[in-house]
Amino acid sequence: MANINLSDLIRNVPDFPIPGIQFKDITTLLRDGGAFRHVIEAFSERYSERDIDAVVGIESRGFILSAPLAYNLGVGLIPVRKPGKLPAETYQIEYELEYGTNTLEIHRDALENGMRVLIIDDLLATGGTIAAATQLVEQAGGVIDELAFLIELTFLNGRQQIGNYSIFSMIQY
Amino acid sequence: MANINLSDLIRNVPDFPIPGIQFKDITTLLRDGGAFRHVIEAFSERYSERDIDAVVGIESRGFILSAPLAYNLGVGLIPVRKPGKLPAETYQIEYELEYGTNTLEIHRDALENGMRVLIIDDLLATGGTIAAATQLVEQAGGVIDELAFLIELTFLNGRQQIGNYSIFSMIQY
Repeated sequence: MANINLSDLIRNVPDFPIPGIQFKDITTLLRDGGAFRHVIEAFSERYSERDIDAVVGIESRGFILSAPLAYNLGVGLIPVRKPGKLPAETYQIEYELEYGTNTLEIHRDALENGMRVLIIDDLLATGGTIAAATQLVEQAGGVIDELAFLIELTFLNGRQQIGNYSIFSMIQY
Repeated sequence: MANINLSDLIRNVPDFPIPGIQFKDITTLLRDGGAFRHVIEAFSERYSERDIDAVVGIESRGFILSAPLAYNLGVGLIPVRKPGKLPAETYQIEYELEYGTNTLEIHRDALENGMRVLIIDDLLATGGTIAAATQLVEQAGGVIDELAFLIELTFLNGRQQIGNYSIFSMIQY
């Protein structure tokens, strides 16, 4: 199954969540068991030989990719969540995103110092969310192996907002 | 690995999110790669021979279990989400939960009529969330095979709030 088939399974929803934004709806891919499996296996193949100690997933669509990937790699899953969701002590960061502002948190004890982590999310748009996640992971003691995305909206130049990290995206628009 | 070991990995956080609630924090289990893998494999084993057509996951911790399970079973993942997150036409339901009210949605085209689905979430507490999810799934044309949970707080009698469904929980308190 080539990338072209995966992108055929992603639904374009105009003017969501606000006028002028064309939303990439991955639920039409997720409900296709074969396509979902292909996506997880392609990510797993990429990272299986890279000595990843943990996978960091960003709430909430990021959990849909990070959880099966952590499972397949046999490593732990570390959630980065919206404020007020993680019950123990957290590091917190506030940042601007495409439409509004957002805050993300990670548990202070989520990682052991020097753990090599992969951060995965569904979408790289303007890069604000993933940039915040990289800061949280490093604050918690993690070393970032790579940032991975199912979809990259290249026209938004998200890569320029992130630091000097290795970035992989499966589908580009 | 027996259930007793899994529950040893779940952290009790007193007075979260409000005074008097003892929160069951599963992040301490999720970060243990072996324990997380065990949980997913135990669920997969239970459902691998049951002709499940799709796994329904409830935002957002439910995604952490439903996504690897759908992946392992080779079927699609259908998200039930908080309002304003699903971009296409939805069915919506509002319900009361342990502390406040909540609304959940499912895409109207998420399921094909008569599909046999498993709904999985991390926690069965008072049962409001899962009861709402069962209604949404049936409105969308799904037939419910079973409701599955990582944790059941039996003292909250959640089972009595649900309908006449088969229910499985891996850890009971």
